[in-house]
Amino acid sequence: MLHSFRELAENYSTIFFDAYGVLKNFEGVLDGALSVLGELKRGGKEIFIVTNDASRSPKKMSRTYLHEELGELFPEDRIISSGLLARDFLRAKVRERTVAYLGKQDSAYYIESAGLIAKPLSECLASDSIGALALLDDEGFDWQPDINRAINLLRQKTIPVVVANADKVYPVHGNAVAVAVGGIADLIESIPDTRFVRFGKPDAYLISYAFSRASALTPGLRRKDILMVGDSLDTDIRGGNKFGIDTVLVLSGNTAKASYQLTIDASGVIPDFICESIST
Amino acid sequence: MLHSFRELAENYSTIFFDAYGVLKNFEGVLDGALSVLGELKRGGKEIFIVTNDASRSPKKMSRTYLHEELGELFPEDRIISSGLLARDFLRAKVRERTVAYLGKQDSAYYIESAGLIAKPLSECLASDSIGALALLDDEGFDWQPDINRAINLLRQKTIPVVVANADKVYPVHGNAVAVAVGGIADLIESIPDTRFVRFGKPDAYLISYAFSRASALTPGLRRKDILMVGDSLDTDIRGGNKFGIDTVLVLSGNTAKASYQLTIDASGVIPDFICESIST
Amino acid sequence: MLHSFRELAENYSTIFFDAYGVLKNFEGVLDGALSVLGELKRGGKEIFIVTNDASRSPKKMSRTYLHEELGELFPEDRIISSGLLARDFLRAKVRERTVAYLGKQDSAYYIESAGLIAKPLSECLASDSIGALALLDDEGFDWQPDINRAINLLRQKTIPVVVANADKVYPVHGNAVAVAVGGIADLIESIPDTRFVRFGKPDAYLISYAFSRASALTPGLRRKDILMVGDSLDTDIRGGNKFGIDTVLVLSGNTAKASYQLTIDASGVIPDFICESIST
Amino acid sequence: MLHSFRELAENYSTIFFDAYGVLKNFEGVLDGALSVLGELKRGGKEIFIVTNDASRSPKKMSRTYLHEELGELFPEDRIISSGLLARDFLRAKVRERTVAYLGKQDSAYYIESAGLIAKPLSECLASDSIGALALLDDEGFDWQPDINRAINLLRQKTIPVVVANADKVYPVHGNAVAVAVGGIADLIESIPDTRFVRFGKPDAYLISYAFSRASALTPGLRRKDILMVGDSLDTDIRGGNKFGIDTVLVLSGNTAKASYQLTIDASGVIPDFICESIST
Repeated sequence: MLHSFRELAENYSTIFFDAYGVLKNFEGVLDGALSVLGELKRGGKEIFIVTNDASRSPKKMSRTYLHEELGELFPEDRIISSGLLARDFLRAKVRERTVAYLGKQDSAYYIESAGLIAKPLSECLASDSIGALALLDDEGFDWQPDINRAINLLRQKTIPVVVANADKVYPVHGNAVAVAVGGIADLIESIPDTRFVRFGKPDAYLISYAFSRASALTPGLRRKDILMVGDSLDTDIRGGNKFGIDTVLVLSGNTAKASYQLTIDASGVIPDFICESIST
Repeated sequence: MLHSFRELAENYSTIFFDAYGVLKNFEGVLDGALSVLGELKRGGKEIFIVTNDASRSPKKMSRTYLHEELGELFPEDRIISSGLLARDFLRAKVRERTVAYLGKQDSAYYIESAGLIAKPLSECLASDSIGALALLDDEGFDWQPDINRAINLLRQKTIPVVVANADKVYPVHGNAVAVAVGGIADLIESIPDTRFVRFGKPDAYLISYAFSRASALTPGLRRKDILMVGDSLDTDIRGGNKFGIDTVLVLSGNTAKASYQLTIDASGVIPDFICESIST
Repeated sequence: MLHSFRELAENYSTIFFDAYGVLKNFEGVLDGALSVLGELKRGGKEIFIVTNDASRSPKKMSRTYLHEELGELFPEDRIISSGLLARDFLRAKVRERTVAYLGKQDSAYYIESAGLIAKPLSECLASDSIGALALLDDEGFDWQPDINRAINLLRQKTIPVVVANADKVYPVHGNAVAVAVGGIADLIESIPDTRFVRFGKPDAYLISYAFSRASALTPGLRRKDILMVGDSLDTDIRGGNKFGIDTVLVLSGNTAKASYQLTIDASGVIPDFICESIST
Repeated sequence: MLHSFRELAENYSTIFFDAYGVLKNFEGVLDGALSVLGELKRGGKEIFIVTNDASRSPKKMSRTYLHEELGELFPEDRIISSGLLARDFLRAKVRERTVAYLGKQDSAYYIESAGLIAKPLSECLASDSIGALALLDDEGFDWQPDINRAINLLRQKTIPVVVANADKVYPVHGNAVAVAVGGIADLIESIPDTRFVRFGKPDAYLISYAFSRASALTPGLRRKDILMVGDSLDTDIRGGNKFGIDTVLVLSGNTAKASYQLTIDASGVIPDFICESIST
């Protein structure tokens, strides 16, 4: 029933990896992952990370995956974060230079690299000309005052709100989870009842963006040459399926080994393949 | 178009008042309210507060409405809080003695008066036998760690969760609002995707409870003898309408004078009467 | 783990039964049900049906449960339908005499018994003064034109909409289900985005109404004297729990024997007891 | 405040038009539209239709826009329908050759052109090997039996469900609307509670697909060279904004002249420009 990831990967020229639950977890990079990634690179595969994590820049994310011999397995341009779509949106659509944000200082990268000024929402004054509100990360601010600030800002001003990570929740340690910025966005959005601009899987637009990036490296790349690897049916597999590329569910993260078939049947989201992990 | 509240009130023997936006706001009791309430009492009307506020006991709420000559306008037994329904639920349905809660210490009244032990969620240990989780108020805890704690508790244990105030949001000062415990409950509930037990308007059950209380004082009380006074279409007026009593919308709180007809048309919630305030 | 229903029933003076999945299914009354009900009546128990079915009058429903010796096990006044709450609402709140409805002709009983004129929505003219729209049943009208008619009526007029059955779906035969009027109501309500008035379990108000009716027969009736028997966690058990009465889940209908514990854990709705059926 | 569409169009090389409410309505092509489109073509602009309409093939849609001198203003390859994304999905992801569908026969084009066999859901037998369910159009089937059939099919089989038009509602004549297949999809999806694959605006993926098509004609095309023209904030403008192209709201369709600013403020969806119609 379960496939060997190594054998499966042979059929594709390009592989999109989700990060958390596939390549790493709260303790760090998963056992054996660097070795498999190294083999893939040596075998000529083009590998990318496609992630909803907008907590820091692709450059900083690169440092997580260091191979003893090959060095950075995912150079900056191989890391496609939903934050990059948020950055492009801000660059194209924001008319005032200051963007208020919720998130860690590192996540402000996605505002600043759009040529805009990032200001923590808690430091914004009523007199500031704010062009947009960016919800970037669940850390780096004080939830109660800042969630209330966000709601009141949106009651006063009609500005775009961009959510750089569509996830509602993320795994932390053991079996525990934490609310991600997408969950906070749902709460804020429901109160003025406006429409936020969300980026990230399962939106096929992120996969489509990764496809453009990969096509620049491999002219003539076809969808059937690509495999999307993820641990979450609701984001990775839905997104990959919608974009029409092959998808493989790995059981090293969000989806439990004991109940994956139940979860597939209950959700109606069907991966093309299932592997225990990428080290199999 | 607008009615005089004083004239309207003459047609009823019993009046249910929402508190916030009707009798008081963030600055205190509304101008003229105590005087109108005093007149009603002197005229023999039975008056009650029917509120979604579970932040403190009815006894403490009583102290807010002191009339120069009549003293407490709403003695403890005239204040019907959604917290009382939560208390009754806990008393009937909880099998372990300890109930974890989110809220101020004052709100724990609704657990303790059920004969149970109230413990702030942040102080609960993994080894504690917890019989239920009670979401009582938006203050008194640290949102980020405690919302995450609540979610993880519910992923581990199948216990009832009671929400003592169904409101998503409440007015604070000026035009500003704050997320109420009902909004926090929506966020928590959406992640394990379980069903919480919510008490408070627009649920007609709270009005039905108030009706029982009022009937004990006025044998033979009929629904058409009662007027529900509220500033929120979505809670006060919906609840009163559903229970089949007459409803009056006052424009001293949540619903703006400039746009009340638009709000009625957009919501489909139709009050029987509209008054500028209870002092009219 | 499973209890004997007969033994359990001994501890209560009054029993509220859901009908479908508990007493009958698409083939008729369940084997052994009449016999158990007869025993309960002979043993002096007060028995009631508490149902979300508003497709016909309580009088017609009575004929389903005929005992060889005892005759009608549930006389008309022992059948509490959510339709009765809809009737009371219409009587109290509708200002024009004509009420448009979707449903079978039999379901119009709940409009007519409020002293109003029931008119199928498809026969309503633009010139009619319509006081309310009543969604009564999923049968008796042509879905496509009539759902569109309902939406356009609500875009033109601000009138109350009452839903006499909150269920989204109901079992038909084998493992199949059909969309109930509550599901149709969700679709209609989402388009003008107004607020409908829904009656029926899990709303504790229906249980509260049944409690009043039962108290009239048994003065001094306490909640702990009552047992709610249902096959659906999401309606029967939630409603009974919220009202604070004991609840028993039977596995003869909506909830499968093989997976009831999973369903309880996933929903967070916890019955006090579980029985295979009422014949055990 | 309002811009002239003709002047605005001069700043772009490529224009994406929504069809319904922008180019045509229930009576046919809007007055003056053909003439404006002709001018644009003569002026060297690349014009495309980007539509959520999957009721018939692009080839059939082409015939609607015939210019006296220029002939078909939108040849088949200039019409980007959400149905094309559904077709690509079916081609990539369906493993059995037969796809059950709800919709008119014309809409089956999007299944057949994927090399699959389209079968109306009402004609499918329990013994058929069905690879997917496609929700294509709100016409062409009998709602009550077929919506119930769809729900029961999904309770039995884990197959992908594709929705070729994300709209919930569409305008018909005068001020009236009708439920679109996206609304029917919401009802069906909520009952087994699975995840459908929806195509169409506001999903930026459709705009991204149109961008690829337009780039093939205009190498080096940049996003800032494109203008998206639409009458619906919630689909056209949201989708264009998210993709980072300039957007113009026209007031000839879904958004009323009297209240567009209110609608913008309430939704938080902000067009870059507003024009009365494309003929201005």
